[in-house]
Amino acid sequence: MTSQEEPQEGLSTLTKVTGPSSWSRVSCPCCISSHIEPLVLIQLAENVQPITKQWIMSMISAPVKAGGAQLLVHPGEDMKGDMIVVAAPRCTLLRVTEDLGLCKTYQDGNMTAFSFEDRDNFCNIDNMQQFLTLAERQYIVKHELDSMRAMEDQRIPGIPAPKGKLKARESILQKLEKAGVIRNITPLHDQKLLLALGKQWYSHKSLWGQPLDSIHAYFGGTIAYYFSFLDFYTLSLFPPAILGLFITFFLPSANFSNGNKTDSEPTLPKHDDDQPSVSSYMVQAVFSMLWSTVFMELWKRRSAALSYHWGTFNLAEQFQEPRPGFHGELSTNPVTGRLEPLFPEWKRRLRIGVVSVPVVGVFLGLVVMGMAGFYFFERLVSGWHKASESYFTAVLLYLPSIAHILYTNVLGNIYRNVALQLTEAENHREASSFDYHHTTKVLVFTFFNNFAVLFHIAFFKEDLPLLRKRLSSLLIVTQVVNQFTEVVVPFLVDRFLTSADRNLKEDDPDVDHLQAQGSLPAFPGLFAEYIELLVQFGYLSLFSCVYPLTAPLLLLNNLTEIRTDAYKLCKLFNKPFSAPVANMGVWQLAFEVLSFISVMSNCWLLLLSPQVKELTEDAGLSSSKVLVIAVIVEHVLIMVKMILAVMIPDEPDWVRIKREQIEYHSMQALKKQVTLSTNVNC
Amino acid sequence: MTSQEEPQEGLSTLTKVTGPSSWSRVSCPCCISSHIEPLVLIQLAENVQPITKQWIMSMISAPVKAGGAQLLVHPGEDMKGDMIVVAAPRCTLLRVTEDLGLCKTYQDGNMTAFSFEDRDNFCNIDNMQQFLTLAERQYIVKHELDSMRAMEDQRIPGIPAPKGKLKARESILQKLEKAGVIRNITPLHDQKLLLALGKQWYSHKSLWGQPLDSIHAYFGGTIAYYFSFLDFYTLSLFPPAILGLFITFFLPSANFSNGNKTDSEPTLPKHDDDQPSVSSYMVQAVFSMLWSTVFMELWKRRSAALSYHWGTFNLAEQFQEPRPGFHGELSTNPVTGRLEPLFPEWKRRLRIGVVSVPVVGVFLGLVVMGMAGFYFFERLVSGWHKASESYFTAVLLYLPSIAHILYTNVLGNIYRNVALQLTEAENHREASSFDYHHTTKVLVFTFFNNFAVLFHIAFFKEDLPLLRKRLSSLLIVTQVVNQFTEVVVPFLVDRFLTSADRNLKEDDPDVDHLQAQGSLPAFPGLFAEYIELLVQFGYLSLFSCVYPLTAPLLLLNNLTEIRTDAYKLCKLFNKPFSAPVANMGVWQLAFEVLSFISVMSNCWLLLLSPQVKELTEDAGLSSSKVLVIAVIVEHVLIMVKMILAVMIPDEPDWVRIKREQIEYHSMQALKKQVTLSTNVNC
Repeated sequence: MTSQEEPQEGLSTLTKVTGPSSWSRVSCPCCISSHIEPLVLIQLAENVQPITKQWIMSMISAPVKAGGAQLLVHPGEDMKGDMIVVAAPRCTLLRVTEDLGLCKTYQDGNMTAFSFEDRDNFCNIDNMQQFLTLAERQYIVKHELDSMRAMEDQRIPGIPAPKGKLKARESILQKLEKAGVIRNITPLHDQKLLLALGKQWYSHKSLWGQPLDSIHAYFGGTIAYYFSFLDFYTLSLFPPAILGLFITFFLPSANFSNGNKTDSEPTLPKHDDDQPSVSSYMVQAVFSMLWSTVFMELWKRRSAALSYHWGTFNLAEQFQEPRPGFHGELSTNPVTGRLEPLFPEWKRRLRIGVVSVPVVGVFLGLVVMGMAGFYFFERLVSGWHKASESYFTAVLLYLPSIAHILYTNVLGNIYRNVALQLTEAENHREASSFDYHHTTKVLVFTFFNNFAVLFHIAFFKEDLPLLRKRLSSLLIVTQVVNQFTEVVVPFLVDRFLTSADRNLKEDDPDVDHLQAQGSLPAFPGLFAEYIELLVQFGYLSLFSCVYPLTAPLLLLNNLTEIRTDAYKLCKLFNKPFSAPVANMGVWQLAFEVLSFISVMSNCWLLLLSPQVKELTEDAGLSSSKVLVIAVIVEHVLIMVKMILAVMIPDEPDWVRIKREQIEYHSMQALKKQVTLSTNVNC
Repeated sequence: MTSQEEPQEGLSTLTKVTGPSSWSRVSCPCCISSHIEPLVLIQLAENVQPITKQWIMSMISAPVKAGGAQLLVHPGEDMKGDMIVVAAPRCTLLRVTEDLGLCKTYQDGNMTAFSFEDRDNFCNIDNMQQFLTLAERQYIVKHELDSMRAMEDQRIPGIPAPKGKLKARESILQKLEKAGVIRNITPLHDQKLLLALGKQWYSHKSLWGQPLDSIHAYFGGTIAYYFSFLDFYTLSLFPPAILGLFITFFLPSANFSNGNKTDSEPTLPKHDDDQPSVSSYMVQAVFSMLWSTVFMELWKRRSAALSYHWGTFNLAEQFQEPRPGFHGELSTNPVTGRLEPLFPEWKRRLRIGVVSVPVVGVFLGLVVMGMAGFYFFERLVSGWHKASESYFTAVLLYLPSIAHILYTNVLGNIYRNVALQLTEAENHREASSFDYHHTTKVLVFTFFNNFAVLFHIAFFKEDLPLLRKRLSSLLIVTQVVNQFTEVVVPFLVDRFLTSADRNLKEDDPDVDHLQAQGSLPAFPGLFAEYIELLVQFGYLSLFSCVYPLTAPLLLLNNLTEIRTDAYKLCKLFNKPFSAPVANMGVWQLAFEVLSFISVMSNCWLLLLSPQVKELTEDAGLSSSKVLVIAVIVEHVLIMVKMILAVMIPDEPDWVRIKREQIEYHSMQALKKQVTLSTNVNC
């Protein structure tokens, strides 16, 4: 795989060499095609018996009515026999496109919800490679595999009884994964497309602008949204970065209280050198508040436009089949009329309110207790050390830190499991809703972990110089460490360790290249990436008035982050499945909440700054008067923020019009439907 | 008209005596009916020429294509000839029902958006009196009258040129009203229904429960929503009223700081007698915060249920014709494809942001300035009076108050005009949007006027006893004055003055009873009623912890308010038109905003109370520490409130399911529509 062209040949030769005959038969005449595109690779455990593999393959190619996925399978034909390659016939692709509610270009040029019956009026309908993106085709295969269900109680052949027993309506794929039969399911890379994408994306030539449409086509919705947001965010960082640089280098001490001197020569600061002045504090605080609001509102507009452009603005997950892990009493869905498990909404809310929220609260309490304990023991130990000055106590000095780090890590690991299980117990019907609640839980905890110390320093110790130091070291250290662990290490591993391995396989048959694709580590998901952005955004909007260089540093970080994330995704991990989505989901909310907290945080930081304290003391205001003023300013700023958010519409006018058009047409259609159908019957 | 049965006979004899022949001809065969129901009365100015009346009648009965209203007209046939009675043929009623997006019971029992083509599958379709409520039929007539438009530049016959010139697409009715030709348009009462409704509603027998469905059927959407809210609000007042009574009479001084004594014998209070204790302060503050949140959330659920029940949950005003006052460039609406005036959304937002908001701000500033001026001059004058003690200065003492009252009144009147003109200039397309913005403007001003003094007393003077006195006198005085002016005066007028007038007309022909209906004063709208509720709700949620008897007094007030409002509406005013609506509109938002402000207000009131001050002084907390604690408590309470609001779903599950059903069916219909229509074409 040292030469980039080979794997592509590998894929095509799979079809050529083995011929269409090795693929399972196509059931309907319209789907017969000379070219079958392998989309997804299923890797089985090594000890799986041929009879089990045969059964899995027969289920995948069985029609939906029989509980199958109606896909095409190929036995892979390597020596070990532990692979199944899956492709999709045209009919299945089109049917699922309709089920998912994807919009495609209609003959009149508008994006329209795809309808199988009306398929001939959609553009590019004859060429699946153009009609659906690669990511969509692969997601559809995954979707169909996930929805394979046992039609009755049965046994999986070749697997002993307790593991191999399938109950009616149980998800076959989940069972197989739990039983350890299926090791891994990955979408296959298309090396030619990947190479082209990489060139546009992270090569040295392109310094600005990401090929978002190509990313969407190749990697799919969630990943495209992440990069779109990263792109937009980086661009939006320019104004605060410029302001930050200006404040740092041109306004070192233009102290507001010393009258309105507008000398170009900066007077020497009174306190220490990097202490910002009152006016810069205020400018920075008010600016960062306005900026974060406008930024989020504009992003929402951009997000709406992207969602229209990518045909995902009409996804109606509540009308689809429930996600595989969902359980409930089998009954008729009152909305769609389909037979499926139902779970009452009030039970879910009850579980969230009575179980999940208190448990999460307890864990947050444990974090705070951990921090309190750390401070307590640190003071205790340093007291001992001062008293005795022995070697023993010098060693002891490290103990609280070590204990705290251990405690935090253990707690974090336990919490991750608990969060997953709590969300499972909430039994969400839609995958997006599951993700939403799961992410929220982890997010709140992570956020607490990251910011508790900073808030403690800012508002309990009220030690702004320490906050400034902490913030700058956090920004610089995190950046360097991140870049190193995220990219340099995997890159080196990829270059030197794996290539030896690869050279060995060089002269193996083509099929082994497929094998090689599954061997990379699984993509860890976007959670870590988003949380990194969120924490950064938090540093910027919550505390940046203390350290104006935050924005420029973040800008620098993001410019490299884009390329390294891209490189990572293309080269260092298995390709992930990525569902079509209409927005960033819970992350949007997280950023908005943070931008609200930032108003409060900035107001209080301003109040705590020694310069403002001096200023108010000079003006003869009592500390409680100042506090009252701060409270009023805070409330007014929050009001301004809310008015701004309401004033800027969440979607561009043209998207609104398109959305209303669809609404109007479907209203009209509903009214006419019955009449038309009775006409037809006559 | 002293006997209640007569007018009903009047209505029917109009048909009988004059016969269907006097009505304009019905254009389509299906609408021919032996009984024509007079719905709306148009009163012309006295000097209107017969040729003008004839032209108006011809326009009203002309088909929609010719710019008419396609309604039935009757010349009234009284001596003066200044009346036109309007009725509606079946076809017009059904067509407009579809245009408005009203939902009616389908044959499967669900509420479904009415479709003219599919009319035979709706229940009661053969009887318009059952299919549509009286209020709906009358609103439809009004709607059609409003949408009469000149098809080309023309002249209204019998009216001199400048006033009588009609431009193409100009609203005919607006022009006629501006030119003074039409004096008044009122829906006609149905005395039999009215009598039955009155018996259920405000007679001495029924002490509880309002006939909401009958109110909706007879008076229509907006009015029914007002009474539903009043009903729900009154019921919700029981818990705070009971708590208030309990605190006032059983807990006069159970001071929290004096340990946990739970003696049943109340110890004597330290300060004055009606000073509530700290614990009651706290209980009241936290309770009123939670209560207002839960109350608003439960009302939203009730509102959603009512909207489904009344068939108004599917109104899509943006797809209807724009309201008559809307102007813009004539162009094709991109959503509906109809030719109509268009006005870009960004221009509207610009006008709101750049003109309306600053102007409203200036007026609010003027209110504050007026108050400041009042306090300044009062202090000045009382200083003079103390210095000189002369008769002249004693008279002068009244001057600031008088000047302030005059100032406030003049300002209020100017503002009302300005608000209307600002909203006109914003050029809203939908009537509901116009109302929303107009009401908001007036509301903000009125609210400021009502609460500025209380806030000033509470937070600047920090004089809680004065606040308590002010609040109690406001509550009691306002209540007495309101009841008196709203009911007793009109009732007396109605009984003694008007009845003499009526006796004269007793032996006039039936038609004059119609005349009598138009002679009552016009219904002033619900603004004053809603603002009364809102101000009350404000007293309760903002300041009730200072005066626990607020809730019981309000409860008393509301119990009478329901009857007096009902009596007023039925007897003392002309029947108003009332559009079908899906919720309370802007008032919902106003109540919610108020319930947010209440959290802040309660926190600060608590902080200012002398008992809490003593308590914190005893505990040795500095005033700024206490302030910080208050700020934290406030923020936490707001968070709790937001979480509560999110946790309680805005619509009951069954409404959500119905809504999703419709959404799903229209999605399916949209997909199938094209296929079906092509099938039909084949």
